[in-house]
Amino acid sequence: MVAASSDFLPHPLDPLSKEEIQSVIGIVKKAHGELLFNVISLHEPRKAELTKWLENPSTPRPTRIADVVVIAPGGKVYDGLVDIALGSITKWELLDGLQPIITMEELMAVEHVCRKDPKVIEQCEFSGIPKENMDKVYCDPWTIGYDERHGNKVRLQQALMYYRPNVDDCQYQYPLDFCPIYDAERNEIIAIDIPKVRRPLSKMQAINYHPAGVEKAGGYRNNLKPINITQPEGVSFKMTGREIEWQNWKFHIGFNYREGIILNNITFNDKGNVRPIFYRLSLAEMVVPYGNPEHPHQRKHAFDLGEYGAGYMANSLTLGCDCKGSIHYLDADFPTRAGGIRTIKNAICIHEEDDGILFKHSDFRDDSVIVTRARKLIIQQIFTAANYEYAIQQDGTIQPEIKLTGILNTYAMDPNEDTHGWGTQVYPGVNAHNHQHLFCLRIDANVDGPNNTVFMADAVASEAPVGSPENYYGNAFSVKRTKFSTVGQSATDYDGTTSRTWDICNTNKLHPYSGKPASYKLVSREVPRLLPKEGSLVWKRAGFARHAVHVTRYQDDQLWPAGRHVPQTSGEPSLGLPEWMGDGSESIDNTDVVLWHTFGVTHIPAPEDFPIMPVEPITLLLRPRNFFSNNPVMDVPPSFCSTPSQVAANGVGVTNATDKISKLAFTNGSGDCCTNGTNGLS
Amino acid sequence: MVAASSDFLPHPLDPLSKEEIQSVIGIVKKAHGELLFNVISLHEPRKAELTKWLENPSTPRPTRIADVVVIAPGGKVYDGLVDIALGSITKWELLDGLQPIITMEELMAVEHVCRKDPKVIEQCEFSGIPKENMDKVYCDPWTIGYDERHGNKVRLQQALMYYRPNVDDCQYQYPLDFCPIYDAERNEIIAIDIPKVRRPLSKMQAINYHPAGVEKAGGYRNNLKPINITQPEGVSFKMTGREIEWQNWKFHIGFNYREGIILNNITFNDKGNVRPIFYRLSLAEMVVPYGNPEHPHQRKHAFDLGEYGAGYMANSLTLGCDCKGSIHYLDADFPTRAGGIRTIKNAICIHEEDDGILFKHSDFRDDSVIVTRARKLIIQQIFTAANYEYAIQQDGTIQPEIKLTGILNTYAMDPNEDTHGWGTQVYPGVNAHNHQHLFCLRIDANVDGPNNTVFMADAVASEAPVGSPENYYGNAFSVKRTKFSTVGQSATDYDGTTSRTWDICNTNKLHPYSGKPASYKLVSREVPRLLPKEGSLVWKRAGFARHAVHVTRYQDDQLWPAGRHVPQTSGEPSLGLPEWMGDGSESIDNTDVVLWHTFGVTHIPAPEDFPIMPVEPITLLLRPRNFFSNNPVMDVPPSFCSTPSQVAANGVGVTNATDKISKLAFTNGSGDCCTNGTNGLS
Repeated sequence: MVAASSDFLPHPLDPLSKEEIQSVIGIVKKAHGELLFNVISLHEPRKAELTKWLENPSTPRPTRIADVVVIAPGGKVYDGLVDIALGSITKWELLDGLQPIITMEELMAVEHVCRKDPKVIEQCEFSGIPKENMDKVYCDPWTIGYDERHGNKVRLQQALMYYRPNVDDCQYQYPLDFCPIYDAERNEIIAIDIPKVRRPLSKMQAINYHPAGVEKAGGYRNNLKPINITQPEGVSFKMTGREIEWQNWKFHIGFNYREGIILNNITFNDKGNVRPIFYRLSLAEMVVPYGNPEHPHQRKHAFDLGEYGAGYMANSLTLGCDCKGSIHYLDADFPTRAGGIRTIKNAICIHEEDDGILFKHSDFRDDSVIVTRARKLIIQQIFTAANYEYAIQQDGTIQPEIKLTGILNTYAMDPNEDTHGWGTQVYPGVNAHNHQHLFCLRIDANVDGPNNTVFMADAVASEAPVGSPENYYGNAFSVKRTKFSTVGQSATDYDGTTSRTWDICNTNKLHPYSGKPASYKLVSREVPRLLPKEGSLVWKRAGFARHAVHVTRYQDDQLWPAGRHVPQTSGEPSLGLPEWMGDGSESIDNTDVVLWHTFGVTHIPAPEDFPIMPVEPITLLLRPRNFFSNNPVMDVPPSFCSTPSQVAANGVGVTNATDKISKLAFTNGSGDCCTNGTNGLS
Repeated sequence: MVAASSDFLPHPLDPLSKEEIQSVIGIVKKAHGELLFNVISLHEPRKAELTKWLENPSTPRPTRIADVVVIAPGGKVYDGLVDIALGSITKWELLDGLQPIITMEELMAVEHVCRKDPKVIEQCEFSGIPKENMDKVYCDPWTIGYDERHGNKVRLQQALMYYRPNVDDCQYQYPLDFCPIYDAERNEIIAIDIPKVRRPLSKMQAINYHPAGVEKAGGYRNNLKPINITQPEGVSFKMTGREIEWQNWKFHIGFNYREGIILNNITFNDKGNVRPIFYRLSLAEMVVPYGNPEHPHQRKHAFDLGEYGAGYMANSLTLGCDCKGSIHYLDADFPTRAGGIRTIKNAICIHEEDDGILFKHSDFRDDSVIVTRARKLIIQQIFTAANYEYAIQQDGTIQPEIKLTGILNTYAMDPNEDTHGWGTQVYPGVNAHNHQHLFCLRIDANVDGPNNTVFMADAVASEAPVGSPENYYGNAFSVKRTKFSTVGQSATDYDGTTSRTWDICNTNKLHPYSGKPASYKLVSREVPRLLPKEGSLVWKRAGFARHAVHVTRYQDDQLWPAGRHVPQTSGEPSLGLPEWMGDGSESIDNTDVVLWHTFGVTHIPAPEDFPIMPVEPITLLLRPRNFFSNNPVMDVPPSFCSTPSQVAANGVGVTNATDKISKLAFTNGSGDCCTNGTNGLS
């Protein structure tokens, strides 16, 4: 859909094109010679400038700026900005003690080095692997997190080691008990962490999910009949470049190496009045702390977005496989380390799904009925963070959804070893450690305009006792709304007993009927507490995860709540959100605010999750409340509607748009239709 | 599917057939003359007897017994049992101060009486309705709950009054402010509750969701293209009578007037070993307390199952309208009051749905990938409880799901009247009161056998401080399991901060790898506290709603946790669950237990819910943990699978069962296929 011609003007929020990335590579190489490209990504326009242009496209179009991170010889890291049209570098800053994101190419290097390293070979032999079998040794390259013995001046990874006797085996069933540390600059292993108690290689038979493994275990089931989903007249959405219009919604779909999908400038056409709702919505960070305190497992708490990138790790999606129906895909372009282009084909999938009943009412007194079906729009990506994939959906009514699947991280275990409750033996010799997946959704609110206020809403019983005149029968309850006037007040946790929600309100726009402010309500129920303790390494590094909600005043460039460069941060001081919150005194009342929401799951593994884990979904809702004058979907054509007068006239005039495709399961008939909605009373 | 011939032997759990109901009617009429039939429903076989027969069908087949409730002249209520084969009444008991469920016929009578009652007409005139317009006065007939002025000797309903100037208008926009009380025995209005402050009829223009109303407001949107769901080879399930087999699952689908769908004798064929999981699963009760303390609104706290019945209120479903694809329906038969038969055609809908990704893994080092799609089986009913419908889904992996839609209960409101926070003005003159929907799921557990034990599981941080040898980096966390040894210990609430779950365990079956008991975990996140206070009328009547979980020892006939006969109970004493819990000392350790789970939502209305409410879903999961030896769905054929060796051999041997039906949105091509799973790295 995006024209390739040079006279095409990209939307200011479009990701950098291949041509733009190539242009930046040329500019940087010319100025600074050979170096390794870590990031070349859109430096998003300042909000003030972009807002002006969005409101009036005849004002100057924001210029295209590239955000550049490079690693120069000697491991020197530079942050830069490049003005693409001018061909000039406007910022070039040497960083000290900061390590940028770990690219796929860097990750892939580790295994090759491990296999050839004499000390690693020695440890493999100790585990019972002959040195001629080193091609059967694999490693999951991981961020090292932070290891105080090694600090952050040297660019490191840790290698979680596995043996795989057959190349097609699931890798995670023969974990090794030692952990090499890899120096990316020297491209070598600089240390190996070896536990005091050694665990020799498991002799257990492999269990596999590939066809040969399934055949061995009895073969595939053959009793699933196909379900086909077709859209013979095409899709109901329209794309203009990366702007999508669908069912009164309009927004721009961005994508970067870090957050993956970004939804920008989300508006809703409310009967001709185009109302802003969110300026920018994205998954901004996540952390996966593991709960085993034995050294060096404390280092397992990857920040999958800040340390690997949801964009960099995006899967290339395929029709009918990852999604069904009529699909539109968007690709993603990134630089390679050496200055080439890497394209992820079909990185984003856009499609519609039938979503069951939207609303229904039937009246048993007169047999009138209305049934209207729902539709949702899915903007999806799947990214692999070493051993998990996340299918992220953000539907039109704004329902971020994450599906966890993939393979558990595992560690070696001796027969009869006590897990101490820090993990579960999911297969003989395989210990899967407890962990959490904590995601941070960044909500840059724009509810009917930039000035918003966040309230915490708790459903509470009246304080008046049973038997008192104000609450004689004891049934009184209402909502207690707590306004967040300052940043400090906003750091709040979930309370399931009060059905706690957080309301992003425009207090300048009161609803004509309810008198309440126009708002979007954050309804999120999977909100575990950060289990690493206050003052722990994870607590220090993942400041965003200390509470379910934090609200800050909008600032350009405050995008990623664990900091801009996450690998090897010590957490002293805590970067990102804790810095931005300052002493907490800043006012967030009726101003441009950003809500940071941390949610997720605590995963105590079980054998059912092995060797591959069935999907575990996590979902939350952003719902309009007191925003629309009334139900905004009454104009969705119903499948069937009969009014009392039509029923009385024997069905004359009823609306019957019932799907004629559906069939009875065990006959060829199409079943009775709804024209007789009778419940059998006569 | 059920043969009509007389030699067909029903499954002992099949609902009573038309013929059986008719036979019972004949037997009762012969013995007791003319009376009103309230209930004729299967009296389920005793568990001991049925279990014996299920294990060995050559043992005596449990006899068919009908549970009968009738109302005899003078309002006398009788509970009876009828042995159908013997044609004999084995129990016939006069009840005192108990009122049985309110049938649809009884509900429908109220409006007719109201329209003709002089005192109601007088009140309508006072509200501004001329007496010649009484045909435009409607009422929602409601259970009276409990009103201490009227007690429970007389069978009552309350009439929530509305004016509807046009027969096709949405009824709920012109509420009237008074509330007649209807005596079912005398078929007349015996009192009217009239508020001190009167609210005249609203003059606001009507807002309507019917086609004429939508046309007036600008018409239907015309930009939705169809999505078709087809199953050209039919369904993947098999029905034998009311027993269903699907994807290793087998269970019986029951249905009664009270709970609607009942899933019985749920088993899973685990590689040839048929393992029991649940003996019986059903939605057993619900209560909807409203939060406005002003008299007589405290009476609004309907027990939709105990007072109206999810079976009696079931909608007749229609193909392509309520569900899409290939559908199998089951009808429901009930007696009419006078002794006829009322059939709800298509009361239960059974169908499959594609459910996105079941599991996926891709390895960025070797480009191997597996994607397997999920399928779910939906057993669904929709029931109307006066102004709500609930679409209940219970899918194969056991995910009870409720979708709330329909129309808000509303009350009259003067312009500028203060709602005191007990409700929201959703439309001028229309006050929708705060309320909760609290459902009670009855889980009659049978996890690998009848003797089960329930544990509460909380994810908690280690108690060892940061810096201590046991928790140096502060990341240690594990699961704290609290065993419920007695009934009293089991009364527990939800705790979102610890991701609390409840595990139904068979402590006699330890997993060979994890060493943990075979279990099903209850994962439920929509668990608000009962907001009516301790000691309040609702708290007394809805004992089950005091806590999220209660566990009792199995007893035949302990089915409905607010008691067998719910209308007009005073809550003194609390019937049902509080009775059965006794002093709480009974052991529930390693025995036949029933878990009662209360969940739901607190609904603070907003204008978006009016005049008809878009669906609000509530879902929970019953998940196997440490039950299967490993992932039990590895034998579901993948859409696509390539192993590392196949990728290395340029794709020779890969499994490609990708759907060929899906299409690109904006071209006619079928898109690139997965054979090249490359992420673009080279």
